[in-house]
Amino acid sequence: MLKIGIVGGTGYTGVELLRLLAEHPGTRVEVITSRSNAGTPVVDVFPNLRGKFDIKFSEPDVDSYQNCDLVFFATPNGVAMGQAKALLDKGIKLIDLAADFRIQDIETWEKWYGEAHACPSLVEQAVYGLPELNRDAIKTASLVANPGCYPTTVILALLPLLQNGLIEPSSIIADCKSGVSGAGRNANVATTYSELSESVKAYAVTGHRHLPEIRQILQSINNQAELVFVPHLMPMIRGLHATVYADANNTDTNIQQVFENFYRDEPFVDVMPAGSHPETRSVKGANHCRIAVHYLDTSKKYVVLAVIDNLVKGAAGQAIQNMNLMFGLNETTGLNAPGMMP
Amino acid sequence: MLKIGIVGGTGYTGVELLRLLAEHPGTRVEVITSRSNAGTPVVDVFPNLRGKFDIKFSEPDVDSYQNCDLVFFATPNGVAMGQAKALLDKGIKLIDLAADFRIQDIETWEKWYGEAHACPSLVEQAVYGLPELNRDAIKTASLVANPGCYPTTVILALLPLLQNGLIEPSSIIADCKSGVSGAGRNANVATTYSELSESVKAYAVTGHRHLPEIRQILQSINNQAELVFVPHLMPMIRGLHATVYADANNTDTNIQQVFENFYRDEPFVDVMPAGSHPETRSVKGANHCRIAVHYLDTSKKYVVLAVIDNLVKGAAGQAIQNMNLMFGLNETTGLNAPGMMP
Amino acid sequence: MLKIGIVGGTGYTGVELLRLLAEHPGTRVEVITSRSNAGTPVVDVFPNLRGKFDIKFSEPDVDSYQNCDLVFFATPNGVAMGQAKALLDKGIKLIDLAADFRIQDIETWEKWYGEAHACPSLVEQAVYGLPELNRDAIKTASLVANPGCYPTTVILALLPLLQNGLIEPSSIIADCKSGVSGAGRNANVATTYSELSESVKAYAVTGHRHLPEIRQILQSINNQAELVFVPHLMPMIRGLHATVYADANNTDTNIQQVFENFYRDEPFVDVMPAGSHPETRSVKGANHCRIAVHYLDTSKKYVVLAVIDNLVKGAAGQAIQNMNLMFGLNETTGLNAPGMMP
Amino acid sequence: MLKIGIVGGTGYTGVELLRLLAEHPGTRVEVITSRSNAGTPVVDVFPNLRGKFDIKFSEPDVDSYQNCDLVFFATPNGVAMGQAKALLDKGIKLIDLAADFRIQDIETWEKWYGEAHACPSLVEQAVYGLPELNRDAIKTASLVANPGCYPTTVILALLPLLQNGLIEPSSIIADCKSGVSGAGRNANVATTYSELSESVKAYAVTGHRHLPEIRQILQSINNQAELVFVPHLMPMIRGLHATVYADANNTDTNIQQVFENFYRDEPFVDVMPAGSHPETRSVKGANHCRIAVHYLDTSKKYVVLAVIDNLVKGAAGQAIQNMNLMFGLNETTGLNAPGMMP
Repeated sequence: MLKIGIVGGTGYTGVELLRLLAEHPGTRVEVITSRSNAGTPVVDVFPNLRGKFDIKFSEPDVDSYQNCDLVFFATPNGVAMGQAKALLDKGIKLIDLAADFRIQDIETWEKWYGEAHACPSLVEQAVYGLPELNRDAIKTASLVANPGCYPTTVILALLPLLQNGLIEPSSIIADCKSGVSGAGRNANVATTYSELSESVKAYAVTGHRHLPEIRQILQSINNQAELVFVPHLMPMIRGLHATVYADANNTDTNIQQVFENFYRDEPFVDVMPAGSHPETRSVKGANHCRIAVHYLDTSKKYVVLAVIDNLVKGAAGQAIQNMNLMFGLNETTGLNAPGMMP
Repeated sequence: MLKIGIVGGTGYTGVELLRLLAEHPGTRVEVITSRSNAGTPVVDVFPNLRGKFDIKFSEPDVDSYQNCDLVFFATPNGVAMGQAKALLDKGIKLIDLAADFRIQDIETWEKWYGEAHACPSLVEQAVYGLPELNRDAIKTASLVANPGCYPTTVILALLPLLQNGLIEPSSIIADCKSGVSGAGRNANVATTYSELSESVKAYAVTGHRHLPEIRQILQSINNQAELVFVPHLMPMIRGLHATVYADANNTDTNIQQVFENFYRDEPFVDVMPAGSHPETRSVKGANHCRIAVHYLDTSKKYVVLAVIDNLVKGAAGQAIQNMNLMFGLNETTGLNAPGMMP
Repeated sequence: MLKIGIVGGTGYTGVELLRLLAEHPGTRVEVITSRSNAGTPVVDVFPNLRGKFDIKFSEPDVDSYQNCDLVFFATPNGVAMGQAKALLDKGIKLIDLAADFRIQDIETWEKWYGEAHACPSLVEQAVYGLPELNRDAIKTASLVANPGCYPTTVILALLPLLQNGLIEPSSIIADCKSGVSGAGRNANVATTYSELSESVKAYAVTGHRHLPEIRQILQSINNQAELVFVPHLMPMIRGLHATVYADANNTDTNIQQVFENFYRDEPFVDVMPAGSHPETRSVKGANHCRIAVHYLDTSKKYVVLAVIDNLVKGAAGQAIQNMNLMFGLNETTGLNAPGMMP
Repeated sequence: MLKIGIVGGTGYTGVELLRLLAEHPGTRVEVITSRSNAGTPVVDVFPNLRGKFDIKFSEPDVDSYQNCDLVFFATPNGVAMGQAKALLDKGIKLIDLAADFRIQDIETWEKWYGEAHACPSLVEQAVYGLPELNRDAIKTASLVANPGCYPTTVILALLPLLQNGLIEPSSIIADCKSGVSGAGRNANVATTYSELSESVKAYAVTGHRHLPEIRQILQSINNQAELVFVPHLMPMIRGLHATVYADANNTDTNIQQVFENFYRDEPFVDVMPAGSHPETRSVKGANHCRIAVHYLDTSKKYVVLAVIDNLVKGAAGQAIQNMNLMFGLNETTGLNAPGMMP
C-alpha cells in the first residue's frame, strides 16, 4: 500500500487526485496540505468525497511527509522547486503537477515564469512524465515533471507525424480549446460564470507558458520543429480539444495506419476510425486521449483532432499513471473508468 | 459472473448502465438490443465506451435473452409490460427502468400513461425498487420496478419525516429541479441546446406522471399524505434537486438527529451537516443521495433539500443497486465511485 | 435631455444601465464613477459598449454629480445611504439599486444588513420603486429605492391574489431560481464557472435579505401575510423564476380572469394564457415580467409562475422605468426591446 | 413604411428578423409563412415577441406577398430558388438568408448542395450581401444573397490582408468556433442539450458548405487564395469566433494601422486595440464584428481574431443591413443596440 502525500490539496488537480485515488486499490493518502484550509476536513471543501476520506488538510510542512512513499505537488508554479530537494533527500519520490521541472533550459523557464529557478540542479534529473514518450525513464525516476494539459494533447497529436518524419516540422499550428477548470480554482472576476458562459475567446495569442514546453519536446524529436499555439477558453468545465495543422511532406502515406500502428499498444491513447471527430465529452472524467487524423488533399495538410479531460490525462490522471509506472504497478490501475456521456 | 441483457440500449439509461457495468466486477453484458441501431457496435454510438465493450446492438428478440440471468429494460414506458411474462417464465429476472410496474393501481396507471396495461397480473408481484424502503423484498424479487428519478429524491427526503409522524401529511410541497438528461435521448426541438440553455421553466404543473408514483408510496406510509409536485427544467445535463416543504407538527424535534439516525446504515444516503445546502454536482456520476434538513421556526415548516444524479441514483445506478440485492452481491459493488467535482 | 450620473459603474447593474441608456433617446450619461477603475474608458471594461460611450470612469466624488438631474447608485449595499443627503440637498434625484432605502423599519434593516443605518431620516421619504404598486408616488419622488430582483418577481406574482383577498395570507411559499449574475461581478471562488456550471443548489434557506423586503410589502397589503422564501442558484447568467404556492381561500374564482384584469394596463407585466409555463429566456434582456397562474384542485392551491431578467426588470430596467416616471417621460421609453430567443 | 414578408418564419433566423424588425422604425411585417405552424399566432411560438406582433403564420403562397416591398427567405437551402423569379417578376425585392444564390458557379453549388439548381439564370444577377465588400452593388440590387455566418467572419478577418497583398494567399487556415444556434431550430438528437453541453468537437473537417463560399470571395480578390477551414461546435447558443492564420509576406507592416484604416468608416466592423482578444459575448445580440490582429514574429504569421453573433451579423442583422441599403435607409437603422454583457 503506497503512502501518498499531496501538497496543495484545495485546487482542482488536488481534488481530482483524491477522486481518482479513492478508487485506486494500492494507495492510501496519508497527508494533504493546504495553508488556507489547515484543520478543515477534506470533505467539507469537496463534499463529493464524503465517505471516502476522513483526513483533514494540514499545514504544509516537509516533515509531515516523512512517512510517504510519494508526494504529489498540486500547487501553483514555483512551490515544488523549493521543497523537492528535501523530499528527495529523504528518499521520497515526487511528481510535480505544476511547471517547475518541465523545462530543461533554465533561462527559458525563468523568462516565461518570471522568477529565478530555486533548484536548477534537479531540473536535469527530472523526467518529463508523458508515458507515451518516456515510459522507461519514468519507471526509474524519482522526480517526475507532469506535463501541462495543452502539451499533453498537442504532443500526442504530433508524435506519429514527427517521429515518422511525415510533416514539414516548422509548419505546425495548434489551435486549442480548453474548459475553464484549466484556469484553476481561484477567486477571479475573469473566470466567474457570468463572464465566461455563452462566450468564447482566444487568450495569450502572442505567448502562453505551454508554448516553450511543447516546443522543447517537439524539438527533441526534430530540431527544426516550430509551432504557432493559440489557446481558447470554452464555456465548459472540463475538456481540451486540440486542432493541429501541419503540411504533409508527401502525399502517399496511409496516415490512418500510421497512427493506429504508432499507438497500438498504448492503453490510454485511442485512435478513432478514419473520418472521426472526437468530442471532449467522450473522455470526461477518463484518462484517455482520443485522436482522429484527417488529410486535406487540396492543401496537402494533416489536421489532427485530439481530445482529453484536462484534469485527468491533462493533470491528475496522468500523474497517477506516472505513479503506477514509478512503483511497478500496472500502468492502468485506478484509471479504467470510462468517460461520462452524457 | 452474472449474464446481463439490456433492452433498449441507445437511451441515456442504457449507456449509463453500460458505463457502470464496465466497472462492475461480477457481470458480463451478453446482449443489448436496439431496433434502430441493430448491427452497430455499441462504441460507435457511445465512444466513451471504446475499449470497454466489443458487443453490437442486436434486434430486440425475447429468445436472445435466454442465457441471461437478468434483463434490464431501459426502454420507453410500455415496452417491458409486453415482454416481462415471457422472460419471467424462462426464469430470467427483470428490472424495468421505465414505469410499467411502478403503480399498483391499474386504473391509475392507465389514466396517467394513456394506454391499457398489457400485463396487470404481474404488477402486484413487482417490487418497487427503492432499497431504502423495500430492501428485503427486493432481495427475493424476480421483477423490480425501478423508481422514477423525481420519486426517488422526494421519497428519500420525506421518509424520516413521514415514518416518524413529524409532519402534517397533507401539507407537502415538492418543488423539483431536473437536468435535461431526464427527458431522454430523443430528437425534439424542445430539448435542443438552443432552446434550453440559459433558461429555466416549470412544466406539467397540473400533473406529471411521477405525481401518482410519489403519492402511492407516501400514502403507503400515511394514508393522509398528499402533495403538490412541480418539476422544473434546468440548463444542465445531470442532477436533480428536490426542495421539499412540509408543516412540522411539533416544534421540539431534533430533526438533524432524526435524519442522521434514520439513514445511519444506508450506504447511498448521506445526511449532510446541519445548515448545509447540497449541490447536485456533489453527486455527479455517483449513486448517492445527499440530504440536508432545515427547520424554519417563523413558519414551523421543514425544508428538506435532496440531490441525486438523475441517471445514477435516479435510474441506472439504483437499478444496479437492485441487481446487487437480487443476486446476493454486496449492495455497493460497482457503485463506489465518488461524484465528479468540478 | 436628462443628465445622468452613475455611481459604481463596474458591476452588472452598472453596465446594464449603460446598455439600456445607450438606446434611451432622452438621456445623456455625464459621469460614471468607479474607485478601482478611475481613469479607464468605460468601453475598456465593457467592450460591448464600444462606439456607444466615450466617457471614462472617474473617482467617486459628490461634487462631480452637480450637473446631473439624476444619479443611479449601482453600488453595493451601504454606499448610497452615505451620499444621498448631499445629493438631494443639491436638488439631484436619486435611485438606489441596492438595499439602503428599501426597508422602512430601521431595526430590521440593521439586523439583516449587519451595520448601523447611516441615514434613517431619509428612509421614510424613500419610495419603493415598484411601479405596479407605487406608480403615483414614484412620479413625485426624489429618492427611489429600486426593489430587489426576488422581491420584484414574488410581489408581482402575489399582488392579484393578496389585493383581492384570494389566498390564506400566511400560507405563501416562494421557491425561487436565479441566474448567477444576481450575485454580482466579484472575484469569488464560489461563483466561478467551474463551481456553478452543471449544478443547482439552494442557499440561505434559513434567511435571505430579500425575505424582510418581500414580507414588508406583502404585509403592507395584508398584515397577516407571511412567507417561506428559498432562493436557488441556477447555471445560467440571467433570469429569475419564482414558483409561488399559496392556499386558495375559495374554489370558485376565475383566477385567469383575475390576473388578466389586474395587469391589463401594465406595460411590463404579461399574463400568459391559461396553462402556460413561462421560460426565463422569453424575457432575456427585456423589462417584462411574464406570469402564469395555475390552480390545483386536489390541494386547493394556486401556483404562480413568474419570470424576469434579474438585471432588467430586477434591476437596471426597472430603475429606468422609475426614472421615466420621475421625470414625466413615457414610462416605456428605452425599454421596448423584446427578449432575446434563442 | 416598408412592407415586409418573411418566408419560413419558425427558424432562428426568422425569429431574429422579427426581434430586430420589432425595433426598426421603417418597416411593417405584413406576412410571415410557415407550413407547419400556419394559423398559429407568431407569439405562441416565440413568447419573447408577445405584445410586439399580432400576426399569425400563414401558408406559404407566392400571392400572399404581393403587397410586400421585400421578402426575406429564412428558409432551408433550396427554397428561395424555386420562388425568386415569381417575386422578382412582381417587382418585389428579395433577400435570401440561405445559400441558393451565394455561389456563382452552378456546378460548384450543385456539388456541395446535392441537388440541381432550380434557377441558375438568377444567380448571376444576385449580389453577395456583404456590405463591407459590395455596398454599392447592394444598393441597387433586387436579389441579395445574404452571406453565411462563417464566411462573413472569415472574409471580414481577411479583407484588409488580402486586398493589401500582405499575406501569402495560399497559406490561410481558418479555425472557427460556432454556437449551436447556427445549426438551426430542428428536432435532432445531435443538437440536444445533453449531447452538446460540456463538450467541444470539430465537424466537417474534410469539407463544409461554407468552404466554397469563402473560397469564391477570397479568390475574387486574389485568385491564388486558398484556405483550410475547420468549423467547431461550442457549448453556447450564439456567437462565432474565427481564428485565422496566414503567412505574412513582409515583416515591416504596421498591421494594426492597416486594419484600423481599412475599417475606419465601417459602422459594424470594430477593430479592437492592439493586443486584444475579442469575446463573442461582446457582440451578443448586436450586428457588430469585432476584430483583433496579432503578428507572431517567430513564425512570421498573422493571427486574426474575429467575432460576430451568428444570428445577427451572421444572418438576420446583416439581412436588415442589406435591406436598409437596398431601400435607401440609413444603413444602421434598427441595428444600433449594443451587445448584451453579461
